Amino acid sequence: MEFLVQIDVSMPMELPEEERADLLSRERALGRAYLRDGQIKHVWRVPGGLRNIGVWEAEDATDLHEALAALPLFPWMRIEVTPLARHPITVVGA
Amino acid sequence: MEFLVQIDVSMPMELPEEERADLLSRERALGRAYLRDGQIKHVWRVPGGLRNIGVWEAEDATDLHEALAALPLFPWMRIEVTPLARHPITVVGA
Amino acid sequence: MEFLVQIDVSMPMELPEEERADLLSRERALGRAYLRDGQIKHVWRVPGGLRNIGVWEAEDATDLHEALAALPLFPWMRIEVTPLARHPITVVGA
Amino acid sequence: MEFLVQIDVSMPMELPEEERADLLSRERALGRAYLRDGQIKHVWRVPGGLRNIGVWEAEDATDLHEALAALPLFPWMRIEVTPLARHPITVVGA
Amino acid sequence: MEFLVQIDVSMPMELPEEERADLLSRERALGRAYLRDGQIKHVWRVPGGLRNIGVWEAEDATDLHEALAALPLFPWMRIEVTPLARHPITVVGA
Amino acid sequence: MEFLVQIDVSMPMELPEEERADLLSRERALGRAYLRDGQIKHVWRVPGGLRNIGVWEAEDATDLHEALAALPLFPWMRIEVTPLARHPITVVGA
Amino acid sequence: MEFLVQIDVSMPMELPEEERADLLSRERALGRAYLRDGQIKHVWRVPGGLRNIGVWEAEDATDLHEALAALPLFPWMRIEVTPLARHPITVVGA
Amino acid sequence: MEFLVQIDVSMPMELPEEERADLLSRERALGRAYLRDGQIKHVWRVPGGLRNIGVWEAEDATDLHEALAALPLFPWMRIEVTPLARHPITVVGA
Amino acid sequence: MEFLVQIDVSMPMELPEEERADLLSRERALGRAYLRDGQIKHVWRVPGGLRNIGVWEAEDATDLHEALAALPLFPWMRIEVTPLARHPITVVGA
Amino acid sequence: MEFLVQIDVSMPMELPEEERADLLSRERALGRAYLRDGQIKHVWRVPGGLRNIGVWEAEDATDLHEALAALPLFPWMRIEVTPLARHPITVVGA
Repeated sequence: MEFLVQIDVSMPMELPEEERADLLSRERALGRAYLRDGQIKHVWRVPGGLRNIGVWEAEDATDLHEALAALPLFPWMRIEVTPLARHPITVVGA
Repeated sequence: MEFLVQIDVSMPMELPEEERADLLSRERALGRAYLRDGQIKHVWRVPGGLRNIGVWEAEDATDLHEALAALPLFPWMRIEVTPLARHPITVVGA
Repeated sequence: MEFLVQIDVSMPMELPEEERADLLSRERALGRAYLRDGQIKHVWRVPGGLRNIGVWEAEDATDLHEALAALPLFPWMRIEVTPLARHPITVVGA
Repeated sequence: MEFLVQIDVSMPMELPEEERADLLSRERALGRAYLRDGQIKHVWRVPGGLRNIGVWEAEDATDLHEALAALPLFPWMRIEVTPLARHPITVVGA
Repeated sequence: MEFLVQIDVSMPMELPEEERADLLSRERALGRAYLRDGQIKHVWRVPGGLRNIGVWEAEDATDLHEALAALPLFPWMRIEVTPLARHPITVVGA
Repeated sequence: MEFLVQIDVSMPMELPEEERADLLSRERALGRAYLRDGQIKHVWRVPGGLRNIGVWEAEDATDLHEALAALPLFPWMRIEVTPLARHPITVVGA
Repeated sequence: MEFLVQIDVSMPMELPEEERADLLSRERALGRAYLRDGQIKHVWRVPGGLRNIGVWEAEDATDLHEALAALPLFPWMRIEVTPLARHPITVVGA
Repeated sequence: MEFLVQIDVSMPMELPEEERADLLSRERALGRAYLRDGQIKHVWRVPGGLRNIGVWEAEDATDLHEALAALPLFPWMRIEVTPLARHPITVVGA
Repeated sequence: MEFLVQIDVSMPMELPEEERADLLSRERALGRAYLRDGQIKHVWRVPGGLRNIGVWEAEDATDLHEALAALPLFPWMRIEVTPLARHPITVVGA
Repeated sequence: MEFLVQIDVSMPMELPEEERADLLSRERALGRAYLRDGQIKHVWRVPGGLRNIGVWEAEDATDLHEALAALPLFPWMRIEVTPLARHPITVVGA
């Protein structure tokens, strides 16, 4: 099943800069792995902040939550999840 | 998969009273069928309006949308859907 | 350029049913044409209403507005547009 | 009486990690006890954060507040409570 | 159990004036009965509209909903219900 | 004149625990004094947080503000004040 | 006592134009009388709509509500009332 | 003085189509005159609706309101006005 | 030109008490000067917080911003500005 | 393509004053460069805070995000971006 996932990160400016850089680099590595393995199908940056919008594939909400909670920046994220259904105009022959 | 579904009905006061009564009775009949067949697992009235909160079971968001769109009062409903994941404290042995 | 477009339709229940059916069928035909021609790259139904979320491709905001304003249900739509930027994790070699 | 309880936890990242782990483990232990004893009838994780939605049973709002205020993470929680009434379609013979 | 009930009436200006006056007079009669019988313990007008705030007594949310749904202006009301708990400073000896 | 006063306290978790306990105990003592002297006519706990709803009596808004600003936890409170008018159904003979 | 009163009028475009003109002219006449008699102390137009912000003088909220409810356009108004207290810098010798 | 003016039009679909077309054409004519005479300095369409954002020049808020209230579609507009100040980086030598 | 200015102060509780007291006393001194010189025409305390509502006189938005930015507590203020126009009922002979 | 960009800065009061002054001066230098080079076409201060509204020119959303993310105060900014389309009244001969 697909989900629209909007993520807003509040970078922890109180952490030392190198710890922040390390978090960010581990975040991106896991993001790339998800993209390669199909958990993330599409992802875009929303201009003007550390915000992104993605389309995620997961078996169900439990599976999706596990993938999100594994993100290194998870404790600093505000995440909104919208379940997605098939739209009639995308169905051949409908 | 389970979904929390909040439904808010704006009864179409402009329709003749008997048409409204008929819509409402067909709405309740389908609601009872869903409850019996397990599409609706729990449902409560929110006091103070034609509002209810339910826990629905569906294969995915497409399946859920079809069940909702079949409700006779669907065109007068404002519906909010929240996907639900398993909570760790409900897992035996976790 | 890509845009996230969220569309919420308030079906005009005051119109005669066949006029509504006609509007809806012309709406879907144009939607399918946009999908075939690449103006709409992805589109999903948000369960629980006449709401959809799509990723649109347009040269710029003027071009996008023209495509949206041509939709037969445009006067009954509430539309939100978010410009989308490339996300760093989608860039090869970055 | 039943209540829908939505809980949003802002984990106190400023506390040392082991204090946080201890709070979390005591939180889960009490949650499991409530579930076993029937104060919590159902509980789900909302994907994408430390958020849950539960159906709680309490004699009244005073009794419910006491159960909530006893949770170890209570000072870091934002809690919303909705009273729940019986829905007509759940009443046999109605 | 006590509930704070905030009621906002959108007077149906499309109804003939005498029908409106009749609805209003039946509304006030039932309000006075509730006040005399203790279902409404306190009620105030919020200045600047057909809005009131009241403290209602009911066995539970089901009982409260029945009292509210019986109001003649119920279909034109937007109602918000907040469950009320005992405050520690009102408890003698606490 | 009467006012509905909704108070939401963000307990200063950064203060040492005994300072917090002292603030809370002085807060409750003044609350009890207000209740005894009639500045607070009714007060309830809203379940799920350090939130209360009260009906206060004051000569005017200046008098009310002074009573509120004297509360020991005032700097950590978010307060909303609604002026209350007499409701017609509470007036004998009206 | 003084109140800040913000009024937003939704002109009833469904009424015949001359009825609307009559309502508006009676509205303005009563507004001028209030201004002359001191019930309205100050009033401004908020640019861009039929919105105004005024400072009203009334004995209490009941008295204020009566003055507002007497306005000919009252059924088409959305009104927000904020009680005003004396500000310390306006007090001589404070 | 400059103002940012955001205008959202709810086209009166209940009016006959030719009356709507006439309103729209008179609206555009006055808009063009404002643009030529400098009352409107810049104006853009916000994609996805009858919404525009403009920078208006007026002597003060009274002068601005008169220009806005003269627009033929004014009764169907929701308008938001933000006063604009000079930004330090635009000041030569500052 | 007149502006309605609503100011909400979040007192910096993390500053030492005497620094806070000093900021507050300088704030009030400048407020009194503005009141005497006519930059502030009216000002009221909104009961229940460090919030005030004032009517300010300034040549334009640039002039107003300078007066506001000079306030010692400016960095801890959330300020909302509404431009005010003359209301027709205040115009003699209109 | 043009974008309306609204920027709200929360000055990091926890940083030492000279670091803050340095950030601000580098911020203004880059702002002036953008203005000179045409990335910023117009910019205004919104009175009452460190808020500005600007019209930016960028090839697309990716290009815009890069320009914004290069601002020294970027980590302390809340930014809202609205894509702008050509308005019909600005088109000669339309």
